[in-house]
Amino acid sequence: MKQILIKNGLVITMNGQRQVFEGGDVLVAGDRILAVGMVAPEQIMDDAEVVDAKGKIILPGLINTHVHLSQQLARGIGDDVDLLTWLRQRIWPYESSMDLEDSYISSLACCLELIKSGVTTFAEAGGQEVDGMGRAVAESGLRANLARSTMDCGEGLPTRWQEDTQVALQKQEELLKRWHGQAEGRIRFWFSLRTIFNNSDELIKRTKVLADQYGVGIHMHVAEVLEEIQFARESRGLPTVEHLAKLGVLDRNFLAVHTVWLSDKEIDLFALHDVKVSHNPGAAMKVLGFARVPDMLDRGIPVSLGTDGAPCNNRMDMMSEMYLTSLIHKGRTLNPQVVPAEKVLEMATIYGARCLLWEDEIGSLEPGKKADLIMINPTSPSSLPMHDPIANLVYAMNSSNVESSMCNGRWLMRGRKVLTMSEEKILQVTQERAAALIKKAGITLPERFPVIRTAAQ
Amino acid sequence: MKQILIKNGLVITMNGQRQVFEGGDVLVAGDRILAVGMVAPEQIMDDAEVVDAKGKIILPGLINTHVHLSQQLARGIGDDVDLLTWLRQRIWPYESSMDLEDSYISSLACCLELIKSGVTTFAEAGGQEVDGMGRAVAESGLRANLARSTMDCGEGLPTRWQEDTQVALQKQEELLKRWHGQAEGRIRFWFSLRTIFNNSDELIKRTKVLADQYGVGIHMHVAEVLEEIQFARESRGLPTVEHLAKLGVLDRNFLAVHTVWLSDKEIDLFALHDVKVSHNPGAAMKVLGFARVPDMLDRGIPVSLGTDGAPCNNRMDMMSEMYLTSLIHKGRTLNPQVVPAEKVLEMATIYGARCLLWEDEIGSLEPGKKADLIMINPTSPSSLPMHDPIANLVYAMNSSNVESSMCNGRWLMRGRKVLTMSEEKILQVTQERAAALIKKAGITLPERFPVIRTAAQ
Repeated sequence: MKQILIKNGLVITMNGQRQVFEGGDVLVAGDRILAVGMVAPEQIMDDAEVVDAKGKIILPGLINTHVHLSQQLARGIGDDVDLLTWLRQRIWPYESSMDLEDSYISSLACCLELIKSGVTTFAEAGGQEVDGMGRAVAESGLRANLARSTMDCGEGLPTRWQEDTQVALQKQEELLKRWHGQAEGRIRFWFSLRTIFNNSDELIKRTKVLADQYGVGIHMHVAEVLEEIQFARESRGLPTVEHLAKLGVLDRNFLAVHTVWLSDKEIDLFALHDVKVSHNPGAAMKVLGFARVPDMLDRGIPVSLGTDGAPCNNRMDMMSEMYLTSLIHKGRTLNPQVVPAEKVLEMATIYGARCLLWEDEIGSLEPGKKADLIMINPTSPSSLPMHDPIANLVYAMNSSNVESSMCNGRWLMRGRKVLTMSEEKILQVTQERAAALIKKAGITLPERFPVIRTAAQ
Repeated sequence: MKQILIKNGLVITMNGQRQVFEGGDVLVAGDRILAVGMVAPEQIMDDAEVVDAKGKIILPGLINTHVHLSQQLARGIGDDVDLLTWLRQRIWPYESSMDLEDSYISSLACCLELIKSGVTTFAEAGGQEVDGMGRAVAESGLRANLARSTMDCGEGLPTRWQEDTQVALQKQEELLKRWHGQAEGRIRFWFSLRTIFNNSDELIKRTKVLADQYGVGIHMHVAEVLEEIQFARESRGLPTVEHLAKLGVLDRNFLAVHTVWLSDKEIDLFALHDVKVSHNPGAAMKVLGFARVPDMLDRGIPVSLGTDGAPCNNRMDMMSEMYLTSLIHKGRTLNPQVVPAEKVLEMATIYGARCLLWEDEIGSLEPGKKADLIMINPTSPSSLPMHDPIANLVYAMNSSNVESSMCNGRWLMRGRKVLTMSEEKILQVTQERAAALIKKAGITLPERFPVIRTAAQ
């Protein structure tokens, strides 16, 4: 099996003891890590590819636990508008106008941005046209949970989406059979629930049964906005999380996303049922509000990080989310010691793996785990001097410091050049396809300043 | 006079009518802008340098109204600690150990980061060893207000800094005479007041007299933390801003920085006296709290943006501050329509110029103004598709999209390569000098994770 030896870097393992090796090595064989830290010379084969990591930082690949692949072509169509306008005038017309090829292009563009910002694994929130997504993920070399947007009720839904409960479940089962375990095991399929606005109790309960039966997880937007809690109270008699507990869906395979509006009791319910959480600070600040992340972490809930979709963040960039995570809670609690840099790094790596039920294979650099890692070059005007590498990673570095990336033992990027996809082609087709799709969906955006079009243009 | 014609870009002028030219030109002659938008062929000389800006965005150079040049070597020494530890165990020992050469190197490193993130003008907060700063700014090609850290009282101050009021004023006057108007007029000198903790009423009043006499401004940290308001109440009988009003220092040439803790009455006082404000969202979130920016903007106060220093942000990056500015107030007010992208762009450009009393020459692209501009390349995985360029500028792009920069008619950066300074040399000397300085200051940082040092290292 082909070996790759990454030599003499600052290896931040995120293993159980959180060991950091200065002048450490990572030895990769095939798709797995063979040794970490001080590698014995007899483990290294003569024909191993040797990569000098002097002055570089080696980290587990970042794990983004909430991504909307289908929304990548919609970046910038929903800025500075209220939530209802965002949803009904912009995102729904956009998403319901997509075809399979749009989904594929949108997913390619998203995967490209994810690779360039250090992500090796992500979880799709549940979007349109999963076959397009799967094709793009397979090509990109990334590891991903895929999911399908699932709605069987709700006000204002485009006709195309008004789906019967049985049909919604059946379509997901078909997709699971088609995609789960594909692309050398890099792709898994999870069930998804969009929101309590758009999911009947029957759908929620039957989803739980199927997820358990197939041994996979459920990905759901939970307690996003205050209106949702009011809606849940009025329609179900309880706030969202309490109602979900009553339906029996809160469990170790339930990933609750956003969770901005939680009572103490609901945080207790999460801890009790080993529920997983995805915190999306960019989207939270831009449209939702501040989640009680320090409280959840204090209760031992593994809070991971996600970017959400391009039209509500608008950066699909985990380096940026790490920075925001540290800032948002310090600012909100007026305590600069809360959610320190090392905790943010845990959230973006090992907690992410735990939230995706994939901790046995990813999230840390340990012998036997999959070879998912990134190499960071800290030598840049925005990250030097470096007195405290983990602080600089979280507070100062950005995606341009991510130099190389490996997933499943395969290089996805070296020296900022993506190897699995053509960046140039994707950028061109992204702009063209996105413009056509917005036109097809009939979306127009107001001009922010008066625009004068010259003859030259 | 040498002409440069930047052709066929998306020119966002930020002029009085906020005109945007699609396929627009900017004609530069010497250090000034000759024409903008549709340039008449007869204005263009035969030997003009022609720059193709097709697909690019042309903006006024960004204006950073609060920077600590001397703190650049301290990035990462004050993360995740409380404010008193930050100040007394980390920043004061660091700053009071600096010499002239440290100040020069720190300033060079800071200027480099500023150029690479699109800044052409900045205001120094008041730091150590102004001669070192001035030398670096002159070399960098940037435009700047310099200032000297000024403290004549306060608990826990390092001995070196215990300065007499008269001496503090006299030293500033000397520096003003030495630096004001230097480097082709790119450098100006302002008076500075550090904080009300460290400035006597006599110093504050006499500073105002001198600033008026020389026709310059005053740069002061104001209402940063709740403890400051309590301190002002106890020692002066009024909260900071009310007390400053009573001393007569609130005026059109007063730049109040941070202003996190303001009452309605104090915001009224700012509006009444035409006070200028610098909002630093990164630092605010990390250590201070959320400022009432929407309220100040509603009252017509020109709120500009600043990065603060490297150990309390930790990104000296105005592209990042623009993003944070949009997010922080949406999240805090739960209103996604507040502080929209076009307002953020005003804050980072024309409001910045107004706050530095330099609006007659910079802050917008208009004939007769100084040629300070940046060229942005939006074709990148993190900013495409682009449906709404101004939204993408604020919400999606980062400093790596800033391709070229010009200040005073001179290119500072082309195609991400800085032309006025050697990036490689500065990075090397920054790391070395910073390590030595921290050692000299006796600062040690705790390890975040257990570190194992291998023999190889």
